[in-house]
Amino acid sequence: MSQALKLAEKGLYTTSPNPRVGCVVVKNNRVIGRGWHERAGQPHAEINALCSADDTVRNATVYVTLEPCSHYGRTPPCAEALIHAGVARVVIAMLDPNPLVAGNGAARLRDAGIMVQSGLLEAQASALNIGFVSRMTRHRPWIRLKMAASLDGKTALENGISQWITSEPARLDAHRLRALSCAILTGIGTVKKDDPQLTVRHVETTRQPWRVVIDSRLDIPADAKLLQGSKILIFTAAPDESRKKLLEEKGMKVMMLPTHGGKVDLAQMMVKLADFEINEVLVEAGSTLSGALVQEELVDELVIYLAPCLLGDKAQGMLNLPMLTRLSDKHTLELTDLRMIGQDIRVTAKFSSLELND
Amino acid sequence: MSQALKLAEKGLYTTSPNPRVGCVVVKNNRVIGRGWHERAGQPHAEINALCSADDTVRNATVYVTLEPCSHYGRTPPCAEALIHAGVARVVIAMLDPNPLVAGNGAARLRDAGIMVQSGLLEAQASALNIGFVSRMTRHRPWIRLKMAASLDGKTALENGISQWITSEPARLDAHRLRALSCAILTGIGTVKKDDPQLTVRHVETTRQPWRVVIDSRLDIPADAKLLQGSKILIFTAAPDESRKKLLEEKGMKVMMLPTHGGKVDLAQMMVKLADFEINEVLVEAGSTLSGALVQEELVDELVIYLAPCLLGDKAQGMLNLPMLTRLSDKHTLELTDLRMIGQDIRVTAKFSSLELND
Repeated sequence: MSQALKLAEKGLYTTSPNPRVGCVVVKNNRVIGRGWHERAGQPHAEINALCSADDTVRNATVYVTLEPCSHYGRTPPCAEALIHAGVARVVIAMLDPNPLVAGNGAARLRDAGIMVQSGLLEAQASALNIGFVSRMTRHRPWIRLKMAASLDGKTALENGISQWITSEPARLDAHRLRALSCAILTGIGTVKKDDPQLTVRHVETTRQPWRVVIDSRLDIPADAKLLQGSKILIFTAAPDESRKKLLEEKGMKVMMLPTHGGKVDLAQMMVKLADFEINEVLVEAGSTLSGALVQEELVDELVIYLAPCLLGDKAQGMLNLPMLTRLSDKHTLELTDLRMIGQDIRVTAKFSSLELND
Repeated sequence: MSQALKLAEKGLYTTSPNPRVGCVVVKNNRVIGRGWHERAGQPHAEINALCSADDTVRNATVYVTLEPCSHYGRTPPCAEALIHAGVARVVIAMLDPNPLVAGNGAARLRDAGIMVQSGLLEAQASALNIGFVSRMTRHRPWIRLKMAASLDGKTALENGISQWITSEPARLDAHRLRALSCAILTGIGTVKKDDPQLTVRHVETTRQPWRVVIDSRLDIPADAKLLQGSKILIFTAAPDESRKKLLEEKGMKVMMLPTHGGKVDLAQMMVKLADFEINEVLVEAGSTLSGALVQEELVDELVIYLAPCLLGDKAQGMLNLPMLTRLSDKHTLELTDLRMIGQDIRVTAKFSSLELND
């Protein structure tokens, strides 16, 4: 299963909106086939593994990181293919995270007389598809907030200068985060201040994530670098039809999602992103939008790059949050990873742990 | 030498103002004696090791983490004792860090026909006595600034509430930092706000460090908890002789060290602390004093405990520093250690690396 997980990881940047899945076929204690899902519309991991077998798969054992599908989607159901191939046993890391279909694939296999076991390295398999699991179970993407700061928690000088606090290895690592995301989310403030492209560079990938901008008043500059290319979504609270039309003619999608206060409804936006089959969102924004997302409990995971330097308290803070009067009101996280990336520190922490089919 | 370093570590909380030193005596590939320096006035590591030998030390090899002394201090010179014992070879991790006497002990041994080698695990031996090395080479203690903050770099709520951001294991670890320090330094602001004791608790130790308060106007409350006990030093800029006398009658030392601006001269204060044979200073202060020390380049090492929580930008920052207008003016450090302490992160970083006898 460990090998199957490694194979699944090969699809880290490419399978979305589908999950990353790996599969290994074993017969007489020998691996005879390997496969992984490469991209939506192409064969699933099981099919690739069966086809790659260098021996007959009859009576073989199949290790697969996600429950084989039992329905006709873009491709025929893998459960049928496994039954047809005559395998003896299927070991599954995790069941389908969609509670409405979980277990159907396994049941179909069992009905056909195949021995089925599940739960082996389940946590690892789930972590690999945390966005897919989130979308299936909560109809909301997994939302990762990325920040870069000095050791004293400052993201920029008072005059706004922020490029670059962290060093190149950390910035490269952040591009890996972009590559595994289905969408990069930012605010109009960052667009106006930094004019970022928010594309994956420095990391090899065959697809670019969606770029999503929150622009309450719909006044994004027409020449913003981010507006070049495709897969651009703009959420606004301004009923400016002519401006909307102008942007849509350029190929962008513009969606009205106003709150009563004239802001974009962030929670509703996340639902919309799930509608767009977006599994993982990477937020790269300033302290206002980042703070609002934390405050509305719309951040699942925090990735902070801390550079070994100090900027002092006049510099800009990481998160604009309402004033707290009691320490018990602090936003609490759980550290999940801590490491050096070059000379910088990378801290990964989760706000919530996603419960799996419980 | 590795064993000798381990022995030296046993004196971590007790040897000051002397260095921590360990010694192992080897004969016919067997360790026949072990010793370490326990406290000032008591025998040095070499003497303890020679005395503990379970075989005759004649022609033995001696591994010692610091060059044996050649002068009469509180105890007779160890070089003479080694010569007298008739050892064949002495391996030294580091020479005496005092440039004026470095090499004298080794030379004395060589003159007596003993084979002497030095430099084995020198970096480790030096790190173990970084404060002693600093005092000997720079006539200034090694100054360690300890801070505790949230992941977004906040030390307290806007209303000042700060107890406790970090969890118990981190606070215990901070008591270990206190225990290995010769002095704990704080400012009058912290005394008035938190009324801390600044003593070593929760860690076994036979001595308490000096407690040093910077109190420019000499208005420390007479009932401050910190004023209980002995070894208390107050630096002030106020020529208030009656108040000074009052405090001195209670057993505290009060020193006038004013700058032109009516503040305490921090750089001069560090020289005075070295005069008091203080090797390592732990600063536990608020953002004003901590910032001033960083600004005056009087911090050698930063130890930050980061708790997995967020407080937002209204909360209090770590360091009060002048506004920067260029990122190149940032204070740059080098990370030397990164680890989890319970659920908190401990970051250790150095501002400067102390050059050894170069």
